[in-house]
Amino acid sequence: MNKVRIGWIGLGGRGQGLLKMVLDYMPDVDVVGVCDLYEDRTEWGRALVEEKRGYSPFATTEYRRILERNDVDAVITPSAWEAHVDICIDSMLAGKRVATEVGGAYSIEQCWELVRTSERTGVPCMMLENCCYGKNELTIFNMVKKGLFGELVHCAGGYHHDLRDEVARGNEKRHYRLRNYKNRNGELYPTHELGPLAKYLNINRGNRMTMLTSMSSKAAGVHDWIIRNKGENYDNADHIFTQGDIVTTCIKCAHGETIVLTHDTTLPRAYSRGNVVRGTRGAYEEKRGILIDGMAEGQTFSHKFIPIEEFCDEHLHPLWKNYEPIGGHDGMDYHVFRAFFESVKNETDPPIDVYDTAAWMSITALSEASIACGSMPVAIPDFTNGKWTNRKPYVRSRYCLDEVCEDLF
Amino acid sequence: MNKVRIGWIGLGGRGQGLLKMVLDYMPDVDVVGVCDLYEDRTEWGRALVEEKRGYSPFATTEYRRILERNDVDAVITPSAWEAHVDICIDSMLAGKRVATEVGGAYSIEQCWELVRTSERTGVPCMMLENCCYGKNELTIFNMVKKGLFGELVHCAGGYHHDLRDEVARGNEKRHYRLRNYKNRNGELYPTHELGPLAKYLNINRGNRMTMLTSMSSKAAGVHDWIIRNKGENYDNADHIFTQGDIVTTCIKCAHGETIVLTHDTTLPRAYSRGNVVRGTRGAYEEKRGILIDGMAEGQTFSHKFIPIEEFCDEHLHPLWKNYEPIGGHDGMDYHVFRAFFESVKNETDPPIDVYDTAAWMSITALSEASIACGSMPVAIPDFTNGKWTNRKPYVRSRYCLDEVCEDLF
Repeated sequence: MNKVRIGWIGLGGRGQGLLKMVLDYMPDVDVVGVCDLYEDRTEWGRALVEEKRGYSPFATTEYRRILERNDVDAVITPSAWEAHVDICIDSMLAGKRVATEVGGAYSIEQCWELVRTSERTGVPCMMLENCCYGKNELTIFNMVKKGLFGELVHCAGGYHHDLRDEVARGNEKRHYRLRNYKNRNGELYPTHELGPLAKYLNINRGNRMTMLTSMSSKAAGVHDWIIRNKGENYDNADHIFTQGDIVTTCIKCAHGETIVLTHDTTLPRAYSRGNVVRGTRGAYEEKRGILIDGMAEGQTFSHKFIPIEEFCDEHLHPLWKNYEPIGGHDGMDYHVFRAFFESVKNETDPPIDVYDTAAWMSITALSEASIACGSMPVAIPDFTNGKWTNRKPYVRSRYCLDEVCEDLF
Repeated sequence: MNKVRIGWIGLGGRGQGLLKMVLDYMPDVDVVGVCDLYEDRTEWGRALVEEKRGYSPFATTEYRRILERNDVDAVITPSAWEAHVDICIDSMLAGKRVATEVGGAYSIEQCWELVRTSERTGVPCMMLENCCYGKNELTIFNMVKKGLFGELVHCAGGYHHDLRDEVARGNEKRHYRLRNYKNRNGELYPTHELGPLAKYLNINRGNRMTMLTSMSSKAAGVHDWIIRNKGENYDNADHIFTQGDIVTTCIKCAHGETIVLTHDTTLPRAYSRGNVVRGTRGAYEEKRGILIDGMAEGQTFSHKFIPIEEFCDEHLHPLWKNYEPIGGHDGMDYHVFRAFFESVKNETDPPIDVYDTAAWMSITALSEASIACGSMPVAIPDFTNGKWTNRKPYVRSRYCLDEVCEDLF
């Protein structure tokens, strides 16, 4: 397969940016169909493909019509959170590989259905977790797999992103976040930090997440923001938001490791993914750097973080060597899309597979359940049904997130 | 009362350092009795008082003999964690004000007994939580009370301190930490971070901590450290430690705020108290600085942290103005001891009272309970028995931690 012909479902802000990237930088990908629930967005996508590629793709507001087409090899869906799983399942049932933008699950049942559908149809499904391919995340991944941190014991991360204005303007912008924040309460967006951490910890390949608790603060940020910046007559100025400003989720793994996630999007702050990796011999903190036992001359320990940049000469992941970042988000988006397209072209498993997708998404629904029950511990299902104790690294791609495949570069 | 005559109970490493500070810098304090379980330490203390002050204090290895003495006005106890509460209770029963070094409780019952004893004898009891008087902590306290962070929503902190060598050498050093780490599992040392945060959040005066969950990672750090640095024949090289390397505790408050504590002492890292304060209008992160909505010119928000030093001109707490730090821990120790001695001299309530002491210490026992029950949520008792809804700031001291009493300076 020299070319991949894709159907594109979802053309909101994020979908638009990603479509541009694919059209600009991936000549081996043809966008043969575009779709959004909104006609104006669908038309925007159609026109963009025409402008960039010189042909007019099939355009529809009903995603199933994309799936019916024989000229669609694979599907990309940067749709609203609520639509991801349905579109993935319907794509697999139509025999088409599918890659979904990130988001969390609404129920555990839909995670199971995702897995069952992939297993029974034999069609893979991938989550486009771009942060797994971040420069820092991959450098740390490389160092973790080399054993430089010793035995991993604890990881943490957060989605620390001041989205008060985006949430407040949700109706104006037709954005899915607003309705979720108005009605839910949980770790709504776990995967940017959890994805890389899960790969460090071999989740679904020799390890798994077994249990979590989740605790939510009050919801005060968006209301205060609206009143101060939009006025008392603005949309939702009198709404009692349910989504707590800070949601802390603690996850336990089968081999005793803990993962702490923070969902943090409606109070003032600077952006961060808050990555922390702790092992018996080293530590990483996103904003401080790396520290390895014995790193300081003449000492068996080290109590000073060194910026990650100083480790890049030796430990930069090969995907980032000689790579001039293109596309959005500092070049991560490009990598994760190439990972998907290569798996389609080579008919290999994607590096983030259906078990990863289900396990990572499930954290959202489980966090909501825990919070609803007063931070009760809840068990995390084994979406592999036991296969995790025996699953080996799948090392057929440069984009592999189980090991670093130096010899494929 | 011009002079305070104190009995000193506990002369391990910490007790020795503190005794030196008092003898060197506090001429209004006479140390009339010294005590430690170990005779050599008691003698060390006696000799130090003699050297510094020219008189020989009463010296004993039985702390009750200190309490019997009429020339002892008040008691300081930097003893082992296990002894704090008994010594406090016995001191109050003997009619002597008492200040205890920090540590956690072993049971909820002992916290109640502390409260009951203080209430029935009318004798105050104070925890010497030095970090409440840290320069950064007090600057943030000042800014919180001025409302600069808006409505507080979330706080976090940790005891991030690589103590592997201290723990490993516990028997050699006769240190209490080792036996606790060998046998317990929980948030063993919560108060350095929790103390200041509790004061920001008005705990026990209009707010209280209602519930927590606690999760522990595996225990791998000390064992790996011993094997690599001390050898396979060293003390406890084959012991299976129970204390997890990272313990994460999530606390919910009555008004919806959350507090996340991290106990982190047996893996490589740099020291930090990890303080985080989040409000609707501003944020503080110990290693990054402060950020306030509207701080950046022409913006309603701000996405850049500014070092805390840049706020000190305007917001430095008066205790730190014209103060050249003396004593240990960057000058915090001096302040917290002065806070206690002033309360003794003036017969006022201490700024960290028995309710604070009980509530803060209880987190340890409750964390152990939660972990023992698979991270189950556990209720935090109301040690004020309802008084918290009506307790007002107690503003009779420059050392007050309820408000900033500018007019007392």
